Amino acid sequence: MPLTLTVFAASPDEGRGLARDMGVRWALEEAGLAYDVRTLSFAAMKQPAHRVRQPFGQIPTYEEDGLILFESGAIILHIAQHHAGLLPDDPDGSARAIAWLFAALSTVEPPIIARSMAGFTIRDKPWYGEQMALLDDQLRVRLTDLSRQLGDAPWLEQAFSAGDLMMIVVLRRLAGTGLLEEHPNLAAYVARGEARPAFQRAFAAQHALFVAGREAN
Amino acid sequence: MPLTLTVFAASPDEGRGLARDMGVRWALEEAGLAYDVRTLSFAAMKQPAHRVRQPFGQIPTYEEDGLILFESGAIILHIAQHHAGLLPDDPDGSARAIAWLFAALSTVEPPIIARSMAGFTIRDKPWYGEQMALLDDQLRVRLTDLSRQLGDAPWLEQAFSAGDLMMIVVLRRLAGTGLLEEHPNLAAYVARGEARPAFQRAFAAQHALFVAGREAN
Repeated sequence: MPLTLTVFAASPDEGRGLARDMGVRWALEEAGLAYDVRTLSFAAMKQPAHRVRQPFGQIPTYEEDGLILFESGAIILHIAQHHAGLLPDDPDGSARAIAWLFAALSTVEPPIIARSMAGFTIRDKPWYGEQMALLDDQLRVRLTDLSRQLGDAPWLEQAFSAGDLMMIVVLRRLAGTGLLEEHPNLAAYVARGEARPAFQRAFAAQHALFVAGREAN
Repeated sequence: MPLTLTVFAASPDEGRGLARDMGVRWALEEAGLAYDVRTLSFAAMKQPAHRVRQPFGQIPTYEEDGLILFESGAIILHIAQHHAGLLPDDPDGSARAIAWLFAALSTVEPPIIARSMAGFTIRDKPWYGEQMALLDDQLRVRLTDLSRQLGDAPWLEQAFSAGDLMMIVVLRRLAGTGLLEEHPNLAAYVARGEARPAFQRAFAAQHALFVAGREAN
């Protein structure tokens, strides 16, 4: 059986590559691995049949010869540790790249998610503006630290790795907010990732799926 | 040089083992590894000398023979992948345990952090109660899913792993909120982790450091 991912049947991001399968698709393309997808509706994601694969009723999942994995970070790490192309060969460099993968998910993404959650949970509340300004400031602290660390380098460590992949996937969620553009080196970093052929193949695949789903309805 | 962690000189949790070094200390104890600590003030954490180790100016960091790591998840994974005691021997079981480690940090912890951040950023705002109720409800969705998955099992997979360790570290941040107690199996799961001798040694070490620091001032 080929390697299979579950993905949204109709991604709420409308094909912009912001759903959590995007990073996994990108990692698979960097590693040169073919894969199939199985699409799920929002209702199907919350059913017991999918919760066996994904206890929180989310996408993506990854299936390979009887192994079922969830959490895009874990899936990307699994691909990176079993195939060339996403981690340096030296053990210390590899550990550093993995630290950046965790930093993307555990330090940089949470304030980005908090901000986007507020965008749809409290948009109609009178305190929306003040709360959003607080959340923006919390996020700016992280972005400033990340920008300082990256400096003029192309990638976070010596060469592109799964850590950059995850960080760029996370930063792409800021598209349209203007916050990324406050740090031109971070905006250029994201653009550098998006220019990679593997990114472009992954982006095209999820976009084509979204368009096909829309045309079928 | 012995393995060395950086930790808070005066932990804001007052020795309750809620700072991010707790999970790393626990993992080191499970693996039977000795370590030294270097304490840092809040001011020192934000200085360039520490940012070389930790770009976001936080603790803990991990130093071992020239390798410097940050992010507690990455450090715990590094320990788990290099020493016995924290991951199953079979590769698929190991990958599943690592998925839980990511789930703890990327799916369960963010709504816990969002809630505790609100506790000190908006406590004096008129909308505090309503916003907190929203954040509590978002967190309850995750806790309900986790509780359903755990069921009557002692651990998330067949045996205690780094995934349980990380999840229990994350859930301990809910102490005093009453939210954990809404799911007796999760409260028992945390207590089961806290009863492990390795947890108790790690807890005692960080607590003793806090007490010594307080007495010195």
